[in-house]
Amino acid sequence: MNATLKPILAAPLKKGDTIGIIAPAGPVRNETDFSGGLKLLTDLGFKTRYRSDILRHHDYLAGTDQERLSEFHELWRDPEVQAILAVRGGYGCLRLLPDLDFDLIRQQPKMFIGFSDLTVLLSEIQQKTGLITFHGPMLTTLARSDRDSQEGFFDLLTGRPRTEIKTTGLEILKGGQATGRLLAGNLTSLVHLLGTPFEPEWRDTILVLEDIGEAPYRIDRLLTHLWAAGKLEQIAGLVLGDFDQCGDREAIWQRALDLLAHRAIPIWGNFPCGHGSRNLILPLGAQAQLDSSSGRLTILDQLVR
Amino acid sequence: MNATLKPILAAPLKKGDTIGIIAPAGPVRNETDFSGGLKLLTDLGFKTRYRSDILRHHDYLAGTDQERLSEFHELWRDPEVQAILAVRGGYGCLRLLPDLDFDLIRQQPKMFIGFSDLTVLLSEIQQKTGLITFHGPMLTTLARSDRDSQEGFFDLLTGRPRTEIKTTGLEILKGGQATGRLLAGNLTSLVHLLGTPFEPEWRDTILVLEDIGEAPYRIDRLLTHLWAAGKLEQIAGLVLGDFDQCGDREAIWQRALDLLAHRAIPIWGNFPCGHGSRNLILPLGAQAQLDSSSGRLTILDQLVR
Repeated sequence: MNATLKPILAAPLKKGDTIGIIAPAGPVRNETDFSGGLKLLTDLGFKTRYRSDILRHHDYLAGTDQERLSEFHELWRDPEVQAILAVRGGYGCLRLLPDLDFDLIRQQPKMFIGFSDLTVLLSEIQQKTGLITFHGPMLTTLARSDRDSQEGFFDLLTGRPRTEIKTTGLEILKGGQATGRLLAGNLTSLVHLLGTPFEPEWRDTILVLEDIGEAPYRIDRLLTHLWAAGKLEQIAGLVLGDFDQCGDREAIWQRALDLLAHRAIPIWGNFPCGHGSRNLILPLGAQAQLDSSSGRLTILDQLVR
Repeated sequence: MNATLKPILAAPLKKGDTIGIIAPAGPVRNETDFSGGLKLLTDLGFKTRYRSDILRHHDYLAGTDQERLSEFHELWRDPEVQAILAVRGGYGCLRLLPDLDFDLIRQQPKMFIGFSDLTVLLSEIQQKTGLITFHGPMLTTLARSDRDSQEGFFDLLTGRPRTEIKTTGLEILKGGQATGRLLAGNLTSLVHLLGTPFEPEWRDTILVLEDIGEAPYRIDRLLTHLWAAGKLEQIAGLVLGDFDQCGDREAIWQRALDLLAHRAIPIWGNFPCGHGSRNLILPLGAQAQLDSSSGRLTILDQLVR
């Protein structure tokens, strides 16, 4: 955990450049989603590259740890690959963290985009190398994302990341201003880093959380774990994204409000990121500002070279 | 976390003594289970005492934190209550940990028995006070427990705890001998203590784990979290209990073997504790010995006054 690492930025892509596709977590369950994602990237003007065994599966994992790890390093090492995209989340990235080659990543910084289980890779790479990584769509979710999310994804890849996010439907649960480094990700995945050497630095972060398909008592337990670990004492602001199939979202918001009752920090709900159709790009490691009066999240740092 | 606290022992009960019943986690879902448990305790010769609002419910919790906490302290404070039993687990004990009155518990040590979500209370009370607490049946699971588990429960309460456990069906996954303090509980509940001030001391423990209804990838993630947090480096032995509705139990055993491949410590599977009908008593905080050649778990310490 080193919050003071100098940020490393990846170079943007131009049309004709290559995106590397990896399966570091769960296996592709639906080949149509896979081919649909590839077609979308092709339609956007990019080439794609992936290992011929990318559809391999090993129960709930997309292959053995060694297969997933070597695929990750092979694509990252490939000088023609300018960005890395995962096929999907699920579970499995946690198992890879101890063996990541951070020197390789530092030497060949690339755009790295994902969410859900990918959170732990985004977070760990950001922490250990300083590379700004991106919480956003994956190959098999891109086709289901709304037009604005797809455009934001394309704009990021081509070096025009959006630095102001102001959306309809945002709920200002608790007002105020905050500035801090962005830490965005899946609530369950982040909680399963607590007490490990892979735990991110929480202090002074704008913490953005999302999840899907976790029963209300599980969401409560996850938030309570974060609180019991003292992390909610350290953050500068909290942004709650999608919580589909997690019960009543107002109950989730209320639990967050209760656990943060004594702290005068902004808390937002219904932010468009996560497993829903609207999944806007959020750069991990970049300074960001929450302005509750305008409902605007502003990225203050440069994000691409 | 203080592994060197002097053990505190509770006094055994005699027939006619009173058992206090609490609902510190989830609400009673089935009043028949509740009344069946009460009848069983009465048939065993004990009186029972509980607050008139014990069937209260508040979504997935048996009332507000304040209600559950005050009930816990009220029953513990009651000089006529000699043992404390929870109605059931579920979720909720984690929310109570910061406000437990350890002075009260130290001054009036009682037999305290439970499992599942109760793990975090058993563990935290053991750690902070030195009281030997007991992993075993709860009120609404007692009637479904097999005769041997019920008898073991009665024998413990009346001051004749079993100090040798040797059962049919035990699987010695990795042989060897080990001695250490017993830390027994629900895998999910224990993992949600990692990185918090409520985390137990793992070093030199005989760690006994059980769970129910967690998908295989979740069990993998929980074990991997324990490993990533370095806890599997510290334990002296691992005993896997019931893992009903968690997929293939051999896959769980194999994951544990893989994560502990470099360590020469005994690993046992199919130990009769947890959510199944056979849920033998295990005293948290007591020294225990695993002997793989005989398949015998021996408790070395005195457990009751």
